[in-house]
Amino acid sequence: MKLVIANKCYSSWSLRPWILMRQAGIPFEEVLVPFGPTFDDPAWKAEVGRYTPAGKVPTLVDGDVAVWESIAIMDYLAERFPDRAIWPTDRTARAMARSLAAEMHAGFGALRNACPMNLGKKYAYRDRGEAVNRDVARVVSAWRQARERFGQGGPFLFGEFSAADAMYAPVVTRLDTYSFPVDAATRAYMDAVLTTPAFRAWREAALAEHWIVDADEVAEEALENYRQAA
Amino acid sequence: MKLVIANKCYSSWSLRPWILMRQAGIPFEEVLVPFGPTFDDPAWKAEVGRYTPAGKVPTLVDGDVAVWESIAIMDYLAERFPDRAIWPTDRTARAMARSLAAEMHAGFGALRNACPMNLGKKYAYRDRGEAVNRDVARVVSAWRQARERFGQGGPFLFGEFSAADAMYAPVVTRLDTYSFPVDAATRAYMDAVLTTPAFRAWREAALAEHWIVDADEVAEEALENYRQAA
Repeated sequence: MKLVIANKCYSSWSLRPWILMRQAGIPFEEVLVPFGPTFDDPAWKAEVGRYTPAGKVPTLVDGDVAVWESIAIMDYLAERFPDRAIWPTDRTARAMARSLAAEMHAGFGALRNACPMNLGKKYAYRDRGEAVNRDVARVVSAWRQARERFGQGGPFLFGEFSAADAMYAPVVTRLDTYSFPVDAATRAYMDAVLTTPAFRAWREAALAEHWIVDADEVAEEALENYRQAA
Repeated sequence: MKLVIANKCYSSWSLRPWILMRQAGIPFEEVLVPFGPTFDDPAWKAEVGRYTPAGKVPTLVDGDVAVWESIAIMDYLAERFPDRAIWPTDRTARAMARSLAAEMHAGFGALRNACPMNLGKKYAYRDRGEAVNRDVARVVSAWRQARERFGQGGPFLFGEFSAADAMYAPVVTRLDTYSFPVDAATRAYMDAVLTTPAFRAWREAALAEHWIVDADEVAEEALENYRQAA
């Protein structure tokens, strides 16, 4: 089983299935295809296209099955490894976890555009506008609702680490990197995610990435291109 | 089981689980909360908030379970009604169907922004820019890939009607409403969706909506507000 991803410093989508599989103890071979300097870099497209007809990361390749889009990968894993509790086992909790994961999958565009994931940076807090504030407020409120209703069995959204936490892991890094002020319970949840063995390993690898000469500049140009194309 | 939706003329997200449940023969009570004239209309928010903590449509309410986001609703239904083949039964087909559904859930922003679903309108084709063209090309290519590989058993993406078709149903209406030129195979697929009993019933109800005095103007203002907030 292969997981095709992009740079660990920047690729928030890649982080999601990666942290989930690591935390769940599912073995896989990692195939890292570093972003090219532009959105439509043909070499990058060609390399990723070897694994997936959609030409996207992350893609999970399992024999003759290719699954792309992080949330589809998670549902595939849940079917493939039913003993691993990818989603919460309680039916009501699972319904909420899936809703929150899907909300993340399609939403929070203002936060994502204004605050791209960049594990090699740290910024002072500043007000980034009403739309970003609305996104952050909804994220924090959604986390609190899940924790209050289903979070008794552990530090994560539904107690044990699940696909919902994996979906929100890049958001956790954004609130951290861009120093958004949060309440103590939210901070405790963020710390739980940031100190998982899987996230520590991911960040360590992200900070050791050396393949771009001036990582920040190239990344920001690439991210800008992605934003313009989105 | 209640499905909370908004206007049938405009609410592309509401159409998705509605058409799926109708096609699959799953009985439900429809709760239609018409959009207010602005994005943050407090009366609309309050009414929808009676059913879901996220304050979003569509939301499926099943006893004490509330599920929101169309793709999460579909996964919930697949678990709840395992005999209905919400997703394709073949494992490889199902993986691709989930990937395509998730790609729709989070993607095609240019097409969605430039061409909002409006079942009461019809426009001549015009070039709507490179980003829109790229989205349309990808949609058409994704449909073709699915049909060629898995579409032998019927006119839909994976033969029989599935959640993947339901996810793309609003895109089908957009390509139709905005008169995008498509090849014959794509047109045949679109016609298969547009002539399902479920879609016919939805469109009939959409065109009979009378609750807004000047539906077009109010809808376009509402859609503009949604776009600005997105």
